[in-house]
Amino acid sequence: MLDQSLQHARSSQQQYLEQLFDLLRIPSISTLPEHKPDIQQAADWLAADMKRIGLDNVKVMPTVGNPVVYGDWLHAGDEAPVVLVYGHYDVQPVDPLDLWESPPFEPVVRDGELYARGASDDKGQAFIHLKAVESLLGATGKLPVNVKIILEGEEEIGSPSLESFVLKNKELLAADNGLVSDGRILNADQPSIVYGLRGLTYMELRVRGPRRDLHSGTYGGSVHNPGQVVAEIISALHDDSGRITIPGFYDNVRPLTDTERDALASVPYTLEQWQAETGLSLPWGEGEYTLIERMSARPTCEVNGMWGGFQGEGGKTIIPAEAGAKVSMRLVPDQDPHRIASLFEEYVRQLAGSHVDIEVINHSAGWWAITPIDSPEMRAAAAAYKATWGVEPVFAREGGSIPIVATFQKELGAPVVLMGFGLDDNIHSPNEHFRVENFYRGIETVIRYYYNLVEQR
Amino acid sequence: MLDQSLQHARSSQQQYLEQLFDLLRIPSISTLPEHKPDIQQAADWLAADMKRIGLDNVKVMPTVGNPVVYGDWLHAGDEAPVVLVYGHYDVQPVDPLDLWESPPFEPVVRDGELYARGASDDKGQAFIHLKAVESLLGATGKLPVNVKIILEGEEEIGSPSLESFVLKNKELLAADNGLVSDGRILNADQPSIVYGLRGLTYMELRVRGPRRDLHSGTYGGSVHNPGQVVAEIISALHDDSGRITIPGFYDNVRPLTDTERDALASVPYTLEQWQAETGLSLPWGEGEYTLIERMSARPTCEVNGMWGGFQGEGGKTIIPAEAGAKVSMRLVPDQDPHRIASLFEEYVRQLAGSHVDIEVINHSAGWWAITPIDSPEMRAAAAAYKATWGVEPVFAREGGSIPIVATFQKELGAPVVLMGFGLDDNIHSPNEHFRVENFYRGIETVIRYYYNLVEQR
Repeated sequence: MLDQSLQHARSSQQQYLEQLFDLLRIPSISTLPEHKPDIQQAADWLAADMKRIGLDNVKVMPTVGNPVVYGDWLHAGDEAPVVLVYGHYDVQPVDPLDLWESPPFEPVVRDGELYARGASDDKGQAFIHLKAVESLLGATGKLPVNVKIILEGEEEIGSPSLESFVLKNKELLAADNGLVSDGRILNADQPSIVYGLRGLTYMELRVRGPRRDLHSGTYGGSVHNPGQVVAEIISALHDDSGRITIPGFYDNVRPLTDTERDALASVPYTLEQWQAETGLSLPWGEGEYTLIERMSARPTCEVNGMWGGFQGEGGKTIIPAEAGAKVSMRLVPDQDPHRIASLFEEYVRQLAGSHVDIEVINHSAGWWAITPIDSPEMRAAAAAYKATWGVEPVFAREGGSIPIVATFQKELGAPVVLMGFGLDDNIHSPNEHFRVENFYRGIETVIRYYYNLVEQR
Repeated sequence: MLDQSLQHARSSQQQYLEQLFDLLRIPSISTLPEHKPDIQQAADWLAADMKRIGLDNVKVMPTVGNPVVYGDWLHAGDEAPVVLVYGHYDVQPVDPLDLWESPPFEPVVRDGELYARGASDDKGQAFIHLKAVESLLGATGKLPVNVKIILEGEEEIGSPSLESFVLKNKELLAADNGLVSDGRILNADQPSIVYGLRGLTYMELRVRGPRRDLHSGTYGGSVHNPGQVVAEIISALHDDSGRITIPGFYDNVRPLTDTERDALASVPYTLEQWQAETGLSLPWGEGEYTLIERMSARPTCEVNGMWGGFQGEGGKTIIPAEAGAKVSMRLVPDQDPHRIASLFEEYVRQLAGSHVDIEVINHSAGWWAITPIDSPEMRAAAAAYKATWGVEPVFAREGGSIPIVATFQKELGAPVVLMGFGLDDNIHSPNEHFRVENFYRGIETVIRYYYNLVEQR
C-alpha cells in the first residue's frame, strides 16, 4: 500500500507542481487590505482542490478576518489516530519589488528552485499535504489515518482570528495530534525536526513632536527631535553585551538545562553556514550563549522597521513632526507574551520622556511551544524523514513563532509535530524560492508518516 | 543734504508706490519654466528704472540660468566706501490661487498693506534700494557712498548660478561691505538686525547588514540589526544634557561674549511664542543656554530623516538588510563645515562598529556668517533704524543659512548687513503683503544708512 502510494506520488510530480503554480499565481497578501479579493480567491481555489481529491465536508469557513479552509477524511476507523493538519495560504508582501529577479506571482523554476512569493512560506508546504492525501486516495482509495486539514489566511499578520476559530470549533477540530509544515530542515541533505518554537510579542511605537515638520535651521537645538527620541528608545533596548534591558524581561525565562545545551550543540549548524546565509562575517549578540542558542533558545528583541522625516534624494532641512518604529520580541518558556507587552510599553514610555507624545501599539502576542522528543508522533516523523532522506534527522529548536502550535497544544490537547521542508528560501524577502525536490520529498515523507503513526500505536 | 533727500523721498511716496505696482504686475516666477519671458521682462524693467534714476553701467548680465541686473554709481570718491546691494526680482509660485483674496499679480492696498506676490519677498524690498538712490540723486545730485547694485532672478530656486557669477565678476563686484534686504524685523514697532547666520553641514548615513532582509525569528539575536545600528548612532550624537558628542565638534566654537548674550536676551521672543509656533510645551536642548541662543547662536545636530525595514500597516518580522538617516548640523563661528563633515564621518564609522558596513555621504557644506555688532556698518545700520523708527533696534542671530551672505564675506571680503523691512507677510503663501509704511521707512533707513556709513569712517 505504501509503495503504491509513493509510486502514485512520483508519477504525479509534474502535475502536482503545475497545480502549485496556479496557487502561487494568486497574490494573497494578508498584510495589505487591497488584496482581500485575492485572499478569498486562494481560499476558494484550495477548497475546490480539496473536493476534487476526495476530502469530505470541505468548506470555506468565515472568521472575523480571513476565512479558514476546512476538509476531512475520517474513514480510517476509530482505532486509527486523527491527525489535524495546519497550513496557511496567505503570503508576505513583496516589497522591494525591484529586487525580484522574476515577478513574485509568476512562478518559475530555475536550477531546481521554484521562485515565487509563498513558494516555501507556506503555500508550497501546505500543498504537500493535499498532494499526499491525493496520492494515498488515488493509489489505494483510503488513508491509514483520519485526517482533518485547516488552512488559514492570516498567518503573516499574526493569526488574529485563529485562536477564537479553534475555540469555537473544538469538536470539529478534535484530534490526537497536530501536523504543521511551515518551517525548514537544516540543509538539503540533513533533515531536522523542530521540537520547540519561540513566542512573539510585536509592538509599534509612534512618537509625535511638533504639530508639523519644522525648519531645522530656525528651530534646531530647541526641540526634542522625534527621530532622535525613537533612536534613543531603540538603542536603549539592549546593553553593550547584547542583553535586553527592558526591566523584568528575563524574569520568567526557564534556564537551558545541560542536556538541552548538549542537544543544541550537536546540531550541525556552523558559523560558515550562518555567514553564507546572512552575508555577514561577524555574529552579534549574547556572548555567553552559542550562535544556535541565540538563534533558537534565547529571547530576542529586534527592530523590524523604523521611519521619520525626509527619506528622499538629497537633503531637506526639517525636524520631523513624527517618527516611529516596529519592534518585536521572540519569547521562550516561561515568558508571558502579554506581560512582555506591558513591560515593553512601560519602559518605552519612560524612555520617551516628557518632551514628546508617544503611542505604543501591541500588534500581536503569541505563545512559545515545546513538544517532547520521545513522543510516538516524533518517532513516527523521524522514521519518515529517515526513510525518505536516508539520513537520521536531528532535533532542534527554532527561533520563529507559530502561535497555532501553542493553541493546538493548549486548547485541543494535541501534541504537534513540526514537519518542515523548507531550506534557506528567502522567505519574507525578495526572490523567495522552494526546492522542487523538497516539494516531492515532502509528499513522500507525509505519506510515510501516516503509515508510521499507525505502526507506532 | 540728508534732510533734502528725506524730503524728496517723502514727496515721491505715491509715485514710488505706483512704480512698484508696475514691477509687481510682472509674474516673474522662477520655479516655473513657462514664466521665463516674465523673468526677462522683470530684469529689463529694472534695468530701465536703474538707467532712468541715474545709475551707470546698467546691464542685464546673462548667467547659466536667469540674468542678474547690475548698475552702479561710483562718484563718491576714493575715501567713501563701496556698498554692494543685493536683492532678487524672482518670486514664488502662487498656488493655491483660490486662497488669494485679490489676484497675486494685480497689486492693491488694503488697510495699509500692499497685497501682491513678491510685495515683501523681495521686489518691494529690492525696490527700496533703487528709490533710496533716486531720492539722493534727485535731491542732491550725488550719493554719500559708492553703490553697486545686483538683483538676481533665481533666489527662489536656491540661487544656483549666483556663486559662479560672483566668482567670475570679482572685480566688478569688489566692495567694502554688502547690504541685503530680504528679511524681516521683529514687529512693526520694533526694528531688529540679524547679525549672524548659521552654516550647514548635511550628511547621510547608510548602514548595510545582511545581504537581504532576514526573518527575525530565524536570525533574531545573532545579527547586529542595521536599524539598531542607525538608532545607536543617532542616539550617540547627543548626551543627556543636549550637548553634541562628536569628538572635536565644539573645538572651534567662538564663545558667545557677554555683549552678545545681553543683546540676544533683549530679543523679545517668548516661550509662549515658541509654544504657539511648535505646538509643544517643553523646549529641549542645552540647559546652560537660553531658548533664543539654542535656536540661533549655538551649533546643532538634527536628524532630518531616518528609515529602515518595514514601514507599512501591521507587522512584518524582518531584520532589515539596510537602514539609514539624514543628519544635518548648523554651524557657528569658527567651525569649518568641511572639518565637521570629517569629524562626523570618523565618529559615525567608529560607532557603527565592525558587524555592518556603513557609507557616509556629505551632501553639502555651507559657511556661517557673522558681522560684528560693533562694526562700523552695524553701528551705521542701527543708527539709521533708530532715527527712522524712533526705537533702538535689537540684534538677533538667525538659525537658518543664506548662502549668498557667506559668499560675499568669503569671496569679496565684504561684511554684510542684513537690513530687513518685512514682517509676518505671508511670503511663500497666498495673500503675500508688505506694509506700505515699511516700504517708505525702508527708503529713509537706507538713505540714513549711507550718510551714517560716511560718518563712521
